[in-house]
Amino acid sequence: MLVQKYIDMLGAKSVIRDLAGKAAARGAEIGYENVFDYSLGNPSVPVPDAINETMIRLLQTLDSRSLHGYSPNPGLPEARDAVAASLKRRFGIDYKREHIFMTSAAASALAHAFRLVAQEGDEIITFAPFFPEYRPYVNLTGAELKVVSPDTETFQINFDEFEKMINEKTMAVLINTPNNPSGIVYSEETIKRLSDILREAQNKYSHAIYIISDEPYREIVFDGKEAPVIPKFYDNTISCYSFSKSLSLPGERIGYMAVNPAAEGADLLVNMAVQISRGIGHNCPSSIMQRAIAENIDLTADLSVYETNMNLIYDKLVELGFTVVRPGGTFYIFPKALEEDSVAFCQKALKYDLVLVPGDSFGAPGFFRMAYCIDTEKVKRSLPVLEKFVKEEYGK
Amino acid sequence: MLVQKYIDMLGAKSVIRDLAGKAAARGAEIGYENVFDYSLGNPSVPVPDAINETMIRLLQTLDSRSLHGYSPNPGLPEARDAVAASLKRRFGIDYKREHIFMTSAAASALAHAFRLVAQEGDEIITFAPFFPEYRPYVNLTGAELKVVSPDTETFQINFDEFEKMINEKTMAVLINTPNNPSGIVYSEETIKRLSDILREAQNKYSHAIYIISDEPYREIVFDGKEAPVIPKFYDNTISCYSFSKSLSLPGERIGYMAVNPAAEGADLLVNMAVQISRGIGHNCPSSIMQRAIAENIDLTADLSVYETNMNLIYDKLVELGFTVVRPGGTFYIFPKALEEDSVAFCQKALKYDLVLVPGDSFGAPGFFRMAYCIDTEKVKRSLPVLEKFVKEEYGK
Repeated sequence: MLVQKYIDMLGAKSVIRDLAGKAAARGAEIGYENVFDYSLGNPSVPVPDAINETMIRLLQTLDSRSLHGYSPNPGLPEARDAVAASLKRRFGIDYKREHIFMTSAAASALAHAFRLVAQEGDEIITFAPFFPEYRPYVNLTGAELKVVSPDTETFQINFDEFEKMINEKTMAVLINTPNNPSGIVYSEETIKRLSDILREAQNKYSHAIYIISDEPYREIVFDGKEAPVIPKFYDNTISCYSFSKSLSLPGERIGYMAVNPAAEGADLLVNMAVQISRGIGHNCPSSIMQRAIAENIDLTADLSVYETNMNLIYDKLVELGFTVVRPGGTFYIFPKALEEDSVAFCQKALKYDLVLVPGDSFGAPGFFRMAYCIDTEKVKRSLPVLEKFVKEEYGK
Repeated sequence: MLVQKYIDMLGAKSVIRDLAGKAAARGAEIGYENVFDYSLGNPSVPVPDAINETMIRLLQTLDSRSLHGYSPNPGLPEARDAVAASLKRRFGIDYKREHIFMTSAAASALAHAFRLVAQEGDEIITFAPFFPEYRPYVNLTGAELKVVSPDTETFQINFDEFEKMINEKTMAVLINTPNNPSGIVYSEETIKRLSDILREAQNKYSHAIYIISDEPYREIVFDGKEAPVIPKFYDNTISCYSFSKSLSLPGERIGYMAVNPAAEGADLLVNMAVQISRGIGHNCPSSIMQRAIAENIDLTADLSVYETNMNLIYDKLVELGFTVVRPGGTFYIFPKALEEDSVAFCQKALKYDLVLVPGDSFGAPGFFRMAYCIDTEKVKRSLPVLEKFVKEEYGK
């Protein structure tokens, strides 16, 4: 018999994919260059040449049986060593090979992390606005995702509501900073307060509560800053990283889970993840991609275009009177819509070939997301259109 | 809190990996060329040049954002189309794009297939001898794997025991032909009888019972034959395929799930698999590998060496008086040990630097597996050693 819960999920459409589909259809009519498609978080900058060059060299020089051969379950030793050494060098935390588990990008890292610490009957808390896929990611493990409503002034954490939500079933807190969809980077103050609350809750309930830190945007931080490094503040941290955005290769599915060496069970967690893998059919990311990453571990694509785009859009939004928190990173911005119903707002924008995503599915109705991972030239052409839309529809 | 069930799994060691480790350690002592390592099912023939050439051309000519970009959840359309067209051309079944779901090799295809049709409280039946990973693969879905003991005369199916095992909780039957570890290909007669029994059981219990067919060795069949095509015999068939063995690239993790167009729910199953993916963190195999496969869909590595090796080993085993069923495919052979305790038998073989795997973990104690995916030259050198071992230890 077909399993009903997956059939039930088929009805729910992804708002983002639906809008991307509309953008593509409209593009077929008037030329995609004339559709200001801010719907999808798909990296727009080229992959660094060094990655492709490394792959070509590996294909030309390595014995193919070795190049394309099985890697051990937690990943190729050279890839795990390269990740550990890079994290240690950059963040001063004593990661070793045994703390690193290579994954098929962040989705796979998260799938393992959730299962490590939570099961049927447990709860994982996250904070709106949040990436909508977190709901199926967590709920299909059997645990339950609980969502703290947003602090819409700052998009930092709504601590009052968070403290009321923690209970003995809370096994992990899922954070995403730099954040999709707000573009906000959690401040050190936020992370310290979060850590203090969690340490207190660990004592109260006599069990570990992990921070699962989803960090695909770690390298995309603006104003010459760096995002605070979570495991420096909180021992029980599992970091989930993807090279999809930093190297612009989301289709190659490569990332890792890094267990803080100071975490409870640090010596067990990667080996447990190997067991989890057996049940969920993951067996390492592609071996050629692991090698390509290992040889270029500190490389990123030229990510500066995202900051350029952010500043252009942010300044225009402010000029047009939008309420908007300035992003500290990512390639997203999350302004307040000009009417309460952000779905209606985005619907009206579509008439101007502006594709914006309502905040509802991110747990923040009344806001909308723009993914500005598009050419700067197109961003510039979109701004007068945005202005026209706002003036004509809202008389501003 | 760490989830105990994964900690509990850490104690159980893989016999195969343990032996492979011993082989490697012994190789460090005396030179690996002097260890007759029949432990691991790791393809030994080179990847076809066309695969590497395709990858290099893609890296040199395609826009990197397109090459390395996200693929849709069920896989790249060109990869799904290439698979469907190839299966239709070769097997005469009307597969279309919507029946094909690209996966990270067979392990991932199986992880999706099990979840499509079985959940907590359900049962999936398989037949010994069987790949030991089937147990965690199934049991970690919440369903239970039930194992029919082997027909040790033929390594076809022990139908008497099978018929007694089917009940209202049976949701699927997992088969693996050509088979690891026996090398046996199920005959048409076996598959017809299996299908008849399942159709009867479907009627009796008023729900579909699927055949989940694990087919990584489909292209490695000897004597110029082809393995019977399961969906020709049974409508409710989900085929799980991997390119790991046919193209010698197990580390790249590429394969697919193919739903028989005649199956109950054929129009739903791939979309359901997309939902399952969200929960288990799978999001398509590597995009460059999907493209490389699509362009070389009917290609295989030169697999003839496996048949050469099989014949050498089979003839020697018969000459030495072993009871052994001649393999119809794969790169495995599964003879009866020369004493009841096959663990002790394999232990004694180790003294001769012959690495053989006891049949116990495959559900067939008393037998042992040889994975002859090694150089023919080494196979030839191993035969006098095998003879010496048998003569000295068993006086034959």
